[in-house]
Amino acid sequence: MLQLTTGIASANEEYLITASYYSSGAVTASGERFDQDGFTAASRTLPFGTRLQVTNPATGRSVIVRINDRGPFVRGRALDLAKGAAEALGMISAGVATLKIARLTSEEASNSP
Amino acid sequence: MLQLTTGIASANEEYLITASYYSSGAVTASGERFDQDGFTAASRTLPFGTRLQVTNPATGRSVIVRINDRGPFVRGRALDLAKGAAEALGMISAGVATLKIARLTSEEASNSP
Repeated sequence: MLQLTTGIASANEEYLITASYYSSGAVTASGERFDQDGFTAASRTLPFGTRLQVTNPATGRSVIVRINDRGPFVRGRALDLAKGAAEALGMISAGVATLKIARLTSEEASNSP
Repeated sequence: MLQLTTGIASANEEYLITASYYSSGAVTASGERFDQDGFTAASRTLPFGTRLQVTNPATGRSVIVRINDRGPFVRGRALDLAKGAAEALGMISAGVATLKIARLTSEEASNSP
């Protein structure tokens, strides 16, 4: 077992939000190629690169997503997940879901050899 | 946006390990019904209930899994993921993968109304 980092990635406050998912678009607002299978998401306010721990209480599944896009522009929704992340969370059939999110702050100091 | 907890879930050291996945078995070593679609995993040593942040460097995907079983009993492998988690990480075709794991320690003090 090779230790990589001793960095701390901590999830602070946890919030209950409404999220949808999307699977179209060529380029994200951050300028990346959009990967519909990726674990990424759009937020109106969070800085690009922000990592969120996202939990679907209905399935008990949790994933980490990275903000790389802007949206959703629909009242009452706080996050728009790329389809890959939505699939992993088990919310495709629902289309819109209430999810728990917690922002990960990490100060990774790599000490790998 | 409803704040749920101010608990801290932090991921401390991160390790590089070899993992496989499994999809059979009725009951886990912790006595639960085994859910092959779940985000759970088997470890020879970690206590049941331990939550790990698991990242697949090959796909860049990260999920949270909960330890609820014992294994794998194969030299050189440190973790056996339930198929659901392995699918989300994109390691089904590989069968065995090198993954990054970090143990989540959470002191969740729920302050929901």
